[in-house]
Amino acid sequence: MSQLNETHDPSLLSWVESANRPGNGFPIQNLPFGVFREKGASAAFRIGVAIGDQVLDLTALAAQNPWNGLAAEALAACTADRLNRLMALGQAHWSALRLELSRALRAGSPLQTTLEPLLVGRDAVEHDVPAHIGDYTDFYISVHHATSIGKQFRPDNPLLPNYKWVPIGYHGRASTIGVSGQAFPRPVGQTRPATEGGTPQFGPCQRLDYELELGVFIGKGNPQGQRINIEDAESHIFGLCILNDWSARDLQAWEYQPLGPFLSKNFASTISPWVVTLEALAPFREAFQRPENDPQPLPYLSSPANKAAGAFNVQMEVLLSTQASRANGEEPARLSSSNFRDAYWSIAQLVTHHTVNGCMLQAGDLFGTGTLSGPGEGEQASLLELTSNGPITLPWGEQRRFLEDHDEVILRAQCSKPGYPTISLGECAGTVLPAV
Amino acid sequence: MSQLNETHDPSLLSWVESANRPGNGFPIQNLPFGVFREKGASAAFRIGVAIGDQVLDLTALAAQNPWNGLAAEALAACTADRLNRLMALGQAHWSALRLELSRALRAGSPLQTTLEPLLVGRDAVEHDVPAHIGDYTDFYISVHHATSIGKQFRPDNPLLPNYKWVPIGYHGRASTIGVSGQAFPRPVGQTRPATEGGTPQFGPCQRLDYELELGVFIGKGNPQGQRINIEDAESHIFGLCILNDWSARDLQAWEYQPLGPFLSKNFASTISPWVVTLEALAPFREAFQRPENDPQPLPYLSSPANKAAGAFNVQMEVLLSTQASRANGEEPARLSSSNFRDAYWSIAQLVTHHTVNGCMLQAGDLFGTGTLSGPGEGEQASLLELTSNGPITLPWGEQRRFLEDHDEVILRAQCSKPGYPTISLGECAGTVLPAV
Repeated sequence: MSQLNETHDPSLLSWVESANRPGNGFPIQNLPFGVFREKGASAAFRIGVAIGDQVLDLTALAAQNPWNGLAAEALAACTADRLNRLMALGQAHWSALRLELSRALRAGSPLQTTLEPLLVGRDAVEHDVPAHIGDYTDFYISVHHATSIGKQFRPDNPLLPNYKWVPIGYHGRASTIGVSGQAFPRPVGQTRPATEGGTPQFGPCQRLDYELELGVFIGKGNPQGQRINIEDAESHIFGLCILNDWSARDLQAWEYQPLGPFLSKNFASTISPWVVTLEALAPFREAFQRPENDPQPLPYLSSPANKAAGAFNVQMEVLLSTQASRANGEEPARLSSSNFRDAYWSIAQLVTHHTVNGCMLQAGDLFGTGTLSGPGEGEQASLLELTSNGPITLPWGEQRRFLEDHDEVILRAQCSKPGYPTISLGECAGTVLPAV
Repeated sequence: MSQLNETHDPSLLSWVESANRPGNGFPIQNLPFGVFREKGASAAFRIGVAIGDQVLDLTALAAQNPWNGLAAEALAACTADRLNRLMALGQAHWSALRLELSRALRAGSPLQTTLEPLLVGRDAVEHDVPAHIGDYTDFYISVHHATSIGKQFRPDNPLLPNYKWVPIGYHGRASTIGVSGQAFPRPVGQTRPATEGGTPQFGPCQRLDYELELGVFIGKGNPQGQRINIEDAESHIFGLCILNDWSARDLQAWEYQPLGPFLSKNFASTISPWVVTLEALAPFREAFQRPENDPQPLPYLSSPANKAAGAFNVQMEVLLSTQASRANGEEPARLSSSNFRDAYWSIAQLVTHHTVNGCMLQAGDLFGTGTLSGPGEGEQASLLELTSNGPITLPWGEQRRFLEDHDEVILRAQCSKPGYPTISLGECAGTVLPAV
């Protein structure tokens, strides 16, 4: 999957002109998958692929059955209202479909007249979660986040002894995962008593936070009892999206011992609508580096390919707009930027670790990476880290320690490098409503 | 729901004679729901209700549409291959269906000739998980278990300060929940380094355990953002089953900090095939008692009805058979017995706590109670507790500290009291296979 092929040729142009505009993020080299329908419609969602400022309706295209072989089988799986059937087919099918889509959307393609009527403006559509998510697992793969959070929860013991050996993860809640645009009431719950041994406090969360993460959609699963080896792990990954793992820090501090976060996380999680395939991200692979003096991963988590090209150069940022800033027409303020390449564990290692005990993954399962903070200043990907020394002041004068009602958090991610069109993972926006 | 009605009349007898045998566990007062098909068939599962040694095929009965109103709507929901549609209808529908089933199965019912051809022997069928489980949450509601486990993981701090305030829970894995009869390979994974700062060990789990729990199936869910009040909580519960939360203690000890158990639990969980409705359990309600000197629950977790009748008298036991004992024709050995009435939190409190932050529950979601150890000797519902002072000796001479390959753990639960037919929750059996 590290191999580049004709779909990655940076000189390819599409007959969808908006896809050729520099920096539009959805060039013919991207081709991410999602589900969509016309805004405000009550119809079922359909499967589409984003190209420039358009969506190509694959559900409609499937009715015309333009291809043969694996691509035809993959397109037939796009008649569903979620991506699970396509995801379950596996890498050879995804790749065959991508190749045919790339050829059909290229300038000069004889299929242009067939496809043109199947385009819908991206401005005119709405999305839902792209797959039925059977199980959602959240990991903790930024050592920078783990260390700085650890300092706050356990000052004497910030990075636990297992961190550099075990890709720490825990199960999250699938039912409350929503798509970009999600709005949710501020969670209510118990927090630590004001005095030791006292009665806990109860009310709306006072320390509401976001967490900038990437989401990893599992494609083909594994039978219960059969692990996925590190060499095969990436072939079980369909693609990546952006994920906001909203967190109620005061609820978390009181509830998380001994079994981990629960109500502090499960009220809402938001993902971006487009899933960018690993194949589309191949030009942005990098060596997966561990600090020289750190222990090397155990053999089941090691492979030459993972070391050589298991990391991805994905640039991410967090933006915030508030009720006041929107009323004044201010642009959202950028709070941080960081890069996925700084993670301590690779996505292949996550798949292998998750299944080493025989746990079954299924098509459409979602992994969260955990908060992707970087090592530097301005790379703290949650407010808990960003404001640990005191509130930040936004460009329009407001201050924030944690999120206020009506705050909108916007996460963005993209891959760029000289000589290659920018590949966008889109946007993941969510808004805090007042407590019920 | 605490009210008794004509379906609870202890003198009712069925024209299915086996249901009238004292102690058979599936009298006409029980009527639990599950899914079944003929053993070895590849057909879809159908919905059935257990009566004596028979299953009444509700999917087939629905085609005959014998009833009107809510009961007819509830029966129509039984044409699916899982209970989710029936569960989603809510308590009035479940109750109406139970009443019609009770009348139709009573001795002298004019429907006997209609129903007789729709009976299948329980010996002749196999089961699957009765509902599509969207999310699985495991709680920790036995203070006796929490205290004795806590002593082993944190000798200085066995019961954490939040325990008596927060019904502690965490998310589990839905994909690996199987039905009684499940067999799974011993999990493999990392365990604590032999020396501090050393390299972790890797291999098959050496401390494999069971946990005796009850499962709580959610019926009607709640919209995201809207909590379920304690007064309404029980009306969202469809019923109870038995649950074995298999646990790899050595994996758990190494991985669980700071985000909770993960690979130590998610390789397999086993449930019994029949879901006994809360209505069937009404005769076994009891006052929900807290020790006098303990804090009272916060107001959102308190109601007079919960205090007066929120507990259930369900007697449970754990049995073990081994490869050697089966070869010698020995009966399984009883390892412990305990009672659900000794739990620290009620099932109503679990529903309310889970949703207080706006988390959405959906029909078919499963809660585990956590290990239901009791206060007394012989009431320790896991090996970790039972063998904390050394191995136990089984009646046929073998010793056990933890589970060995080919061990079969059998969990049973039933409600009984003088003057009322025994209500069985059936059996939950599972077998450990050698590591792959």
